Amino acid sequence: MTQHDEAFLADWAVQSAFGAVAGTHGVDREAATAPDGEQRRWFAELLESRGFTVQRDAIGNQFGLLELVPGAPYVLTGSHMDSQPTAGRFDGAYGVMASAHACFRVADELRADPASARFNLAVVNWFNEEGSRFKPSMMGSGVFTGKLSLEAALATEDRGGVTVVEALDALGERGNFEGLDVASYAEIHVQQGRSMEQDGVTIGLVDATWAAHKFEFKITGEQAHSGSTLMSDRRDALLGAARLIVAVRELVDEFEQGMLHSACGEIDVYPNSPVVVASQVKLLLDFRSPSEDVLKAAYTSLMATVEKVQHEDRVGIEIIAEHSWDRNPYSEPGVELAREVAEQLGLSNDRVLTVAGHDSTNMKDKVPTVMLFVPSVDGVSHNLDEFTREEDLIDGLHQLTGVVRRLAEGALVA
Amino acid sequence: MTQHDEAFLADWAVQSAFGAVAGTHGVDREAATAPDGEQRRWFAELLESRGFTVQRDAIGNQFGLLELVPGAPYVLTGSHMDSQPTAGRFDGAYGVMASAHACFRVADELRADPASARFNLAVVNWFNEEGSRFKPSMMGSGVFTGKLSLEAALATEDRGGVTVVEALDALGERGNFEGLDVASYAEIHVQQGRSMEQDGVTIGLVDATWAAHKFEFKITGEQAHSGSTLMSDRRDALLGAARLIVAVRELVDEFEQGMLHSACGEIDVYPNSPVVVASQVKLLLDFRSPSEDVLKAAYTSLMATVEKVQHEDRVGIEIIAEHSWDRNPYSEPGVELAREVAEQLGLSNDRVLTVAGHDSTNMKDKVPTVMLFVPSVDGVSHNLDEFTREEDLIDGLHQLTGVVRRLAEGALVA
Repeated sequence: MTQHDEAFLADWAVQSAFGAVAGTHGVDREAATAPDGEQRRWFAELLESRGFTVQRDAIGNQFGLLELVPGAPYVLTGSHMDSQPTAGRFDGAYGVMASAHACFRVADELRADPASARFNLAVVNWFNEEGSRFKPSMMGSGVFTGKLSLEAALATEDRGGVTVVEALDALGERGNFEGLDVASYAEIHVQQGRSMEQDGVTIGLVDATWAAHKFEFKITGEQAHSGSTLMSDRRDALLGAARLIVAVRELVDEFEQGMLHSACGEIDVYPNSPVVVASQVKLLLDFRSPSEDVLKAAYTSLMATVEKVQHEDRVGIEIIAEHSWDRNPYSEPGVELAREVAEQLGLSNDRVLTVAGHDSTNMKDKVPTVMLFVPSVDGVSHNLDEFTREEDLIDGLHQLTGVVRRLAEGALVA
Repeated sequence: MTQHDEAFLADWAVQSAFGAVAGTHGVDREAATAPDGEQRRWFAELLESRGFTVQRDAIGNQFGLLELVPGAPYVLTGSHMDSQPTAGRFDGAYGVMASAHACFRVADELRADPASARFNLAVVNWFNEEGSRFKPSMMGSGVFTGKLSLEAALATEDRGGVTVVEALDALGERGNFEGLDVASYAEIHVQQGRSMEQDGVTIGLVDATWAAHKFEFKITGEQAHSGSTLMSDRRDALLGAARLIVAVRELVDEFEQGMLHSACGEIDVYPNSPVVVASQVKLLLDFRSPSEDVLKAAYTSLMATVEKVQHEDRVGIEIIAEHSWDRNPYSEPGVELAREVAEQLGLSNDRVLTVAGHDSTNMKDKVPTVMLFVPSVDGVSHNLDEFTREEDLIDGLHQLTGVVRRLAEGALVA
């Protein structure tokens, strides 16, 4: 292991302590919470110590900029440091730390060989990728790419009624940086699945995202005494919600194995009292599939269940928010560039799909983008026990460094 | 309408304003919240203005005492003024206000005819009958009757971690009154059902409670990414909970109509995030029936579902708390006394069962007890739109006054 690799692991160990959950290897570092703020301050100092200028934009994205070629556009690389509640320490944070160290190395190389530099270097820690405290997810990159309104994002409230603008201002993490001219983008992430580990692949060349359809349902019943009210008089919103949760799970078995993922992770019940029939439930459900046809068939089936539950349980069911995306390719030249770098480094590699969304899902629609994975043991994700082996972290860092070097030299840009 | 009845309605209108929910006829006055405290102070002043001495015991039960026969035991009458979140204004509060006004009248009568008085008079506003903020329900009467430990009750926390002792002390509603020698108890409540309205009955003579079995389940799964984790790898606690909610509703249809009520009104999900498979759910479920055999059969069936869900969805399911009670009669002499009073007043009356628990459910096991109902329009309960007609409120007040008079003269006590 090189001195550079050891420096990465030392910084990696420090960053893992922010929001660490006692007695576990995981973290609890939701967006714009105190540990997120502490980590951001530490990360800014790290970047500044290596000659980077740190800026924050209006949605709290944190940028580290290094100008090597005056006035030229930037190669941007990064991920997110926020986490789900009680989650793993690799998800997002690995990408940010690998990006910083990749840029440190490439900067050293380009300073030694200035003629080969076409673009400048920038590292980014995107705000609120997880979307657990403030919805939607991928908020920072969504605003940066113009897919999400800044005003709407800043006004978003958490469950306690705290807005994004209040939470960012409390940390001093809302800035006035106007953005930068991005030539190309690279991101590395732990795979949130187990296919690479099973197949013995070290570097995943992400070539497409699964299609997805996400829904927020509102189920409306009527408050009633949960003991004495006649069963036939009840309009039980929680029962309606439970029927949808069961139905979306059972739908999975109507398709070939692995072709449909469905989930409900969040439910909000009112009044949520032991002796009151619930009058309102909000429920987040989603479908994901590598096939748009499967997704459409699942949607049709879900709507039939909605009709049935409305009728039989006498509850109202509305979709109050939904968004969906098609199976969405990453650019082929980016995949090929990543493959060439991996081959040069002698790292086993293969194309993979990503089921989860990433900030690169936003960026790839705007600029040439490379998305990379390293394996995750048993694919454990959004869990304190998430784990990626040290040698995979280092191989991924080498891979990302190679990609950033090629991008800084002008690859993928005409 | 007499001047006394008008005085009752005037006080009734004032009390309905404490915790009133704007734009509705209902209230939000959970136990030991600010509106509960304001109402308690107002109620104490009302009692004192009529010559009663106000005392609070260690669990915050509020008593108004009137000594007419020095050293004699007391006829106690009352109910509760706390409410569910966004609930009706009659549930509990009607019983307390009717009790106060019944005692005001009986006190006047006994002062005019002191020879007929055998017992003294006391009104009670029991603490936390609803159990929505602090569990269990019927907390104040539970402690008073020795069925619930004072220490355990005081240490109970609400969702924000505030204990009963802290909440009571914040209002100055925890006292050191040691209790009183109770000769007999009477309570009146709006029916939380619609049978009396359907049958045209003004006064319900409550002769038994339904049997009930209440459970708190803990369902244990494993946190995972709700998009990318293979469906077959998931252990989804919220799915397990949803299957139980659906199962307890479907169980109802296995029995004759009206023989089983089942409910789940409260659920607590962790981490409750849109992209995380839930690792833990706590769920409150209950069964109620007029038949203990039906309840036993329902229990057996529920346990079979628990086994099946544990196996098929790979989640752990434990019962972490449960309590149950058999079909439980009120004393026959009390029912007969209430019937005689109703007949004398010319009020239509009939025996009824109560599905819901009341503070009298605790008291009846300790002292001779009379439990009365007045009708509720459409049986709407635990709902802002709960409604009882003014004439029924007045008839109920007359009935309770008659019962308290007879009790004060020594009825039901050897």
